[in-house]
Amino acid sequence: MAANKRVLGVDIGGTKCAVSIGTPDGQLVDREELGTDQSAEPAKVLDDLQRIASALLVKHKLTLESLLGVGVSCGGPLDTSTGTILRPPNLPRWEAVPVRAILEEAFPDVRVVLENDANATAVAEWRWGAGVGFQNIVYLTLGTGIGGGIILDGKLYRGHSDLAGEVGHQTILMNGPICGCGKRGCLEALASGPAVARLARESLNYGRGRALLAAAGGRAADITAKHVIECAKRGDALSMGVLNEVGTYLGLGLANIVQILNPQRIILGTLAIHAGELLLSPVREALSEYAWARSLEGCKVVAAGLGERAQDLAAISLVDADSA
Amino acid sequence: MAANKRVLGVDIGGTKCAVSIGTPDGQLVDREELGTDQSAEPAKVLDDLQRIASALLVKHKLTLESLLGVGVSCGGPLDTSTGTILRPPNLPRWEAVPVRAILEEAFPDVRVVLENDANATAVAEWRWGAGVGFQNIVYLTLGTGIGGGIILDGKLYRGHSDLAGEVGHQTILMNGPICGCGKRGCLEALASGPAVARLARESLNYGRGRALLAAAGGRAADITAKHVIECAKRGDALSMGVLNEVGTYLGLGLANIVQILNPQRIILGTLAIHAGELLLSPVREALSEYAWARSLEGCKVVAAGLGERAQDLAAISLVDADSA
Repeated sequence: MAANKRVLGVDIGGTKCAVSIGTPDGQLVDREELGTDQSAEPAKVLDDLQRIASALLVKHKLTLESLLGVGVSCGGPLDTSTGTILRPPNLPRWEAVPVRAILEEAFPDVRVVLENDANATAVAEWRWGAGVGFQNIVYLTLGTGIGGGIILDGKLYRGHSDLAGEVGHQTILMNGPICGCGKRGCLEALASGPAVARLARESLNYGRGRALLAAAGGRAADITAKHVIECAKRGDALSMGVLNEVGTYLGLGLANIVQILNPQRIILGTLAIHAGELLLSPVREALSEYAWARSLEGCKVVAAGLGERAQDLAAISLVDADSA
Repeated sequence: MAANKRVLGVDIGGTKCAVSIGTPDGQLVDREELGTDQSAEPAKVLDDLQRIASALLVKHKLTLESLLGVGVSCGGPLDTSTGTILRPPNLPRWEAVPVRAILEEAFPDVRVVLENDANATAVAEWRWGAGVGFQNIVYLTLGTGIGGGIILDGKLYRGHSDLAGEVGHQTILMNGPICGCGKRGCLEALASGPAVARLARESLNYGRGRALLAAAGGRAADITAKHVIECAKRGDALSMGVLNEVGTYLGLGLANIVQILNPQRIILGTLAIHAGELLLSPVREALSEYAWARSLEGCKVVAAGLGERAQDLAAISLVDADSA
């Protein structure tokens, strides 16, 4: 019977939101996107998302009874026990929004699960992506920021107050560069997309980095991680050097995770997907310098496996067919 | 009925071993110690420990039926799934010793549980010490080395290959001082007992540190963490400065743990017990610098609560009355 069931996924992000329909085993059936209006009231945005969801249900001839549940993925901080979005930095108007209660009213008798986006993606990678078959997994987003999700002994680990997994805000360099979070020397300040761009810009002294500068249209301020990765792929030494430095910091951060959590898989998002071995190779080298060989036995660092579908599947993965 | 039951604890260490009898709720009934003969065969040592155990059982009129189980605590690495001691650095002759099988033969029909000493002490502190009532706890030994044990969601977390909790071997300073493990800049190289002594010795330039030098009998090489703590308690500025520096490194390491695991309690062993606020105060200051205020809400750093009985209770705590 569960085979005919469907899961509704709701992804709430700073630039876009999406509603998706999927199967309990991770097949994406359909999706609909909506640009996030940062100035709109959360109630208005949720109303729009409900309407999109209803339209998708009608289109696919699905009743509420055929829904196994609704998974909602959103930036933290949030309270999973009450299903409340607290105040994500990328959604300034969203403060203490009881999203679970709101959606439960909109979809009577349907279970609603709220989880932060990094945790949700970790669950999706674990159930259907690069983490299939492993019990102890750490996932890092590696995008604009570095979020993380941790699966331990085959279960999402949330911590005492839903704040576990902030692996991007461990300190890698005492007195290092300032991080978006206000601390200094965080992994995020040294190995996120913006950090790659910053390190590249800072390397442009004495006329170095002409290829990279040209790729960014001649303006150093316009250099992004994407330019650095593109140039590195074409063999640009400066860009490769930047990815090497970033990989070293990242490897050190992962080594700390390995020493503390002894995981089987470390799964890396965006940057690793785009840069591939240009980043993963220095990461592995630093890992073997900063973590014990014995702890690294049976632990692999890999790029995320779900690609483009990751965000939709993240929301969908929160509704576990087994626990329904 | 379980109220009349007893637990046998076996603690195997590099300098001494101990057999203890305790109640399932953490009362120590009796104990017997044995100096560890490093040159003896493991089989001989285990034989001696069995004889001591038998004598204790006879003395207290206990039958094998009255035993809930035997808990064995020993330095890692070990394999908890097979009950095998692999090759602890402090017991060079112990290599692949199937201690559980040996003790199960000696005590027929009695359950034997093997766990590494840091994990075992974490369990004891959680069940009966400074961690009572909390679900997410990190314990650090802070002695000759820095071992660790992690309780997550009310369960000991061992990792993929029994190597989780090595919080002492996260990297605090890239290219920092060499650690006993061979890596550089580990927390253990900066905040263990020997690290306190080393930092103190290195501070003795230009005639500084006369009080500390006098406490160690005039020889810098004889300075130990104990001397530093004693002098700091008497107000010696140099010794207080050393504890301050060590507390900062330790606070940074704990901050990383807070960001990754979001625990409710961090429990610190030996050094923190002896130095008290002289160490804990700089630790807390560094924590608030290197961890998020939100993550620190509801998280306290405290000294271990079991004191002298910790090692015996560690072995005893492994046999859980509830799971028998």
